[in-house]
Amino acid sequence: MSAQQPSIPQGTRDFGPAVVARRTYIFGVIRRVFEKFGYAPLETPTLENLSVLTGKYGEEGDQLLFKVLNSGNFLKKQKGEVVKEQVTADDLVAGPRAVLPKIAEKGLRYDLTVPFARYVVMNRHTLTFPFKRYQIQPVWRADRPQRGRYREFYQCDADVVGTNSLLCEAEIVLMMSEVLTTLGLTEHTIKINHRGVLGAFYKALGGEGTEVDLFTAIDKLDKIGQEGVEKELAGRGFSPEATERLFDLLGVGGDFEEKLERLLAAFATAGVEPDNPDGYKGLQDLQQVLAYLRGFGFEQWQNLEFDVTLARGLSYYTGCIFEIKINNVNMGSVSGGGRYDNLTGAFGLPGVSGVGFSFGVDRLYDCLEELQLFPEAVATTTRCLIANFDADSEAAVLPVLRQLREAGVASELYPEPGKLGRQFKYADGKGIPYVLLQGSEERAAGQFKLKTLATGQEQLLTLTEVIRLLA
Amino acid sequence: MSAQQPSIPQGTRDFGPAVVARRTYIFGVIRRVFEKFGYAPLETPTLENLSVLTGKYGEEGDQLLFKVLNSGNFLKKQKGEVVKEQVTADDLVAGPRAVLPKIAEKGLRYDLTVPFARYVVMNRHTLTFPFKRYQIQPVWRADRPQRGRYREFYQCDADVVGTNSLLCEAEIVLMMSEVLTTLGLTEHTIKINHRGVLGAFYKALGGEGTEVDLFTAIDKLDKIGQEGVEKELAGRGFSPEATERLFDLLGVGGDFEEKLERLLAAFATAGVEPDNPDGYKGLQDLQQVLAYLRGFGFEQWQNLEFDVTLARGLSYYTGCIFEIKINNVNMGSVSGGGRYDNLTGAFGLPGVSGVGFSFGVDRLYDCLEELQLFPEAVATTTRCLIANFDADSEAAVLPVLRQLREAGVASELYPEPGKLGRQFKYADGKGIPYVLLQGSEERAAGQFKLKTLATGQEQLLTLTEVIRLLA
Repeated sequence: MSAQQPSIPQGTRDFGPAVVARRTYIFGVIRRVFEKFGYAPLETPTLENLSVLTGKYGEEGDQLLFKVLNSGNFLKKQKGEVVKEQVTADDLVAGPRAVLPKIAEKGLRYDLTVPFARYVVMNRHTLTFPFKRYQIQPVWRADRPQRGRYREFYQCDADVVGTNSLLCEAEIVLMMSEVLTTLGLTEHTIKINHRGVLGAFYKALGGEGTEVDLFTAIDKLDKIGQEGVEKELAGRGFSPEATERLFDLLGVGGDFEEKLERLLAAFATAGVEPDNPDGYKGLQDLQQVLAYLRGFGFEQWQNLEFDVTLARGLSYYTGCIFEIKINNVNMGSVSGGGRYDNLTGAFGLPGVSGVGFSFGVDRLYDCLEELQLFPEAVATTTRCLIANFDADSEAAVLPVLRQLREAGVASELYPEPGKLGRQFKYADGKGIPYVLLQGSEERAAGQFKLKTLATGQEQLLTLTEVIRLLA
Repeated sequence: MSAQQPSIPQGTRDFGPAVVARRTYIFGVIRRVFEKFGYAPLETPTLENLSVLTGKYGEEGDQLLFKVLNSGNFLKKQKGEVVKEQVTADDLVAGPRAVLPKIAEKGLRYDLTVPFARYVVMNRHTLTFPFKRYQIQPVWRADRPQRGRYREFYQCDADVVGTNSLLCEAEIVLMMSEVLTTLGLTEHTIKINHRGVLGAFYKALGGEGTEVDLFTAIDKLDKIGQEGVEKELAGRGFSPEATERLFDLLGVGGDFEEKLERLLAAFATAGVEPDNPDGYKGLQDLQQVLAYLRGFGFEQWQNLEFDVTLARGLSYYTGCIFEIKINNVNMGSVSGGGRYDNLTGAFGLPGVSGVGFSFGVDRLYDCLEELQLFPEAVATTTRCLIANFDADSEAAVLPVLRQLREAGVASELYPEPGKLGRQFKYADGKGIPYVLLQGSEERAAGQFKLKTLATGQEQLLTLTEVIRLLA
């Protein structure tokens, strides 16, 4: 074989039938919950203008954007010249920053949030606000591929923009809870916090160090422990007294409601003024979310945790923030989100508040697989294979095949007469649960033999009985 | 507003909620038919190595490939140097052919067929053959955008490889017929022909001119008419006698079966030998397809046409070929396909025969829209909006909202108390068919007012009655 051995790019994946079926199952559960809560589907192009993408994800994000070469011959050769028109000799000397915009104007979607903001701005005169949309599409990041990190992966986002109502936050908790429960992931923790609470912490420390340093340190608590955080804060200009006050606040215990009350008291003690827009507003928002959840009759309180150390996405979120951990699987968060005040500001439409969250499908998939939670029926498409004995039997079963399909039973006739062993192997390999056989004897009797592959059980049945059993 | 006005790249589209819902409906119909016939889903990466894509679509295709810049700094500037390591000064002088492979190793999927072939070759030791897969994914082509031609668009392919059985061809006709009928596109013509029949035409002309010239000319019959084709053939070395013989053959009339018989006779008269593998094999194949369709009880014969002028995809197909026209819409073919002998040869696996076809979703969408065939229920997600009068009413309807959703009714509560006019406008804008109201009077009576927006009808109902009506 002199031909090339084909391969796929690093960090990308083929999804064969069984995996697609399982992923489709997860997408279906998420989609149905989103839609039940009034979120409508949006799809944006894979290709976005780099002017839309660049500068939205920080400097690291810009580097991780996949850039697409302009079509047309940007490197047109002409009599020894290297490049013509678009790229000048000066550009070449100036380097990538000058060359890149001339050879690549488009990039691949990096997340679903920036395209959503762009869509809202472009369609702001025709959209109905509040605008609730969900979006389930792949995104691309030129990250170094590693176990569990891919260069192409799906995100499942739901966002609502154009309202400050905390009903949306409460419904996010409900949606998270319903998706996980439906998937069978009952051992989960939905963590909730509020950016304002973190801001009040900073105030309570008396303005030492910087806010970002404080949040960054808190964010690491899980990884480096209290001692590590103390050391880090000391190195960043926080006094031991401030750090002690911080850990008093972080250590506030109790359930959701108790923590809210104790933090209110603690902020008062620590001298955060009652009209402080950060801390008190944060706690009031959380109280309102709590009230909505009670109004809904929410019952999974053991799965909802007010986690004052939750910090995620600091540059971005301004209100409630969320994150989900699956407790009985060793894996990062499977979902996260929060409220933002100014998503569309970068595109010239300031003051549009919104809140949203996102599921990571690859991680959910791994959790379901590890916990063996995929329903068995999900894995297969064809339900019944009709065996093909010879030309006569083939002709005789064509109407049978038709009737099975008309009854909604996904069915196939093995496409060639041949050895039954091979046909059973085909059914096995494809995960087809039933094989229907009609040899000359059965045909004479107007009957069929239905074999259940999992058990080896064989039944002699009429076609009506077969259809009743399989449909 | 000093911020940028965002835009999307030429030839790409945003799909808002109503359009996504309609597209999802089309995909769903196609998917269900594919699965009922035993085709299983496959998904391949958006990014493919250019070594896989290049040379598979002809020279024009190579130019239309979207190429993705390698990540990392291929144009690293170093002390006045322009590019480092990967791209050398010699490359720059040599031009694009030398530079491109070093700055772009990946491209965007151009169709679903080449990735399918690559997948089959890479997984040939674990796949169960015959392998029947369907694939519904977007593809990208750097074509000049124009009305109805996009740079990003979906294809819906179904292929089976690893069998020569003509059962597959017959089932393609059945699948095409079922998809179109389910969508309500009853006025369609499924055209079928065989590459061998076209080959026999050439033989019957006595080997004048070249085969490709002949096929190209026949392919234009629709556009330039008989006279135009005659002129073109004369210019390409065909004698007037040969051209006359051709039009005798092309003019063979009758239904499927009659045409088959008359062509058999005509080939004999024209001196095509009975053991000619082209013409006779082609006609025999078509006879077998006909027999299978009869066996299935196929009834839509008026929609199936043996079109001896159908030529499509000459470099590619080797057996039966298909194409679908919607007769009551002025539009090109909405589907096409055929049998190929050597799809995987380019990747080192020769001799794998297969047959497949593809639906063009954008064209189907336009047909359904023009003929107003989209079911009304498809356009909307939320079924019921609960009006929000004030804090008290809001609190009172939270359990109602929960019960509606538990009954599977996609529902929303307007997220803020406010003017009813605005709330009705929201329902209207979003296409929500029902608004549920519970003012203080209704609340006292334990009732609800359900308003049907399309008719303006209002009903006083209990919650149980509301749920029964909406679920």
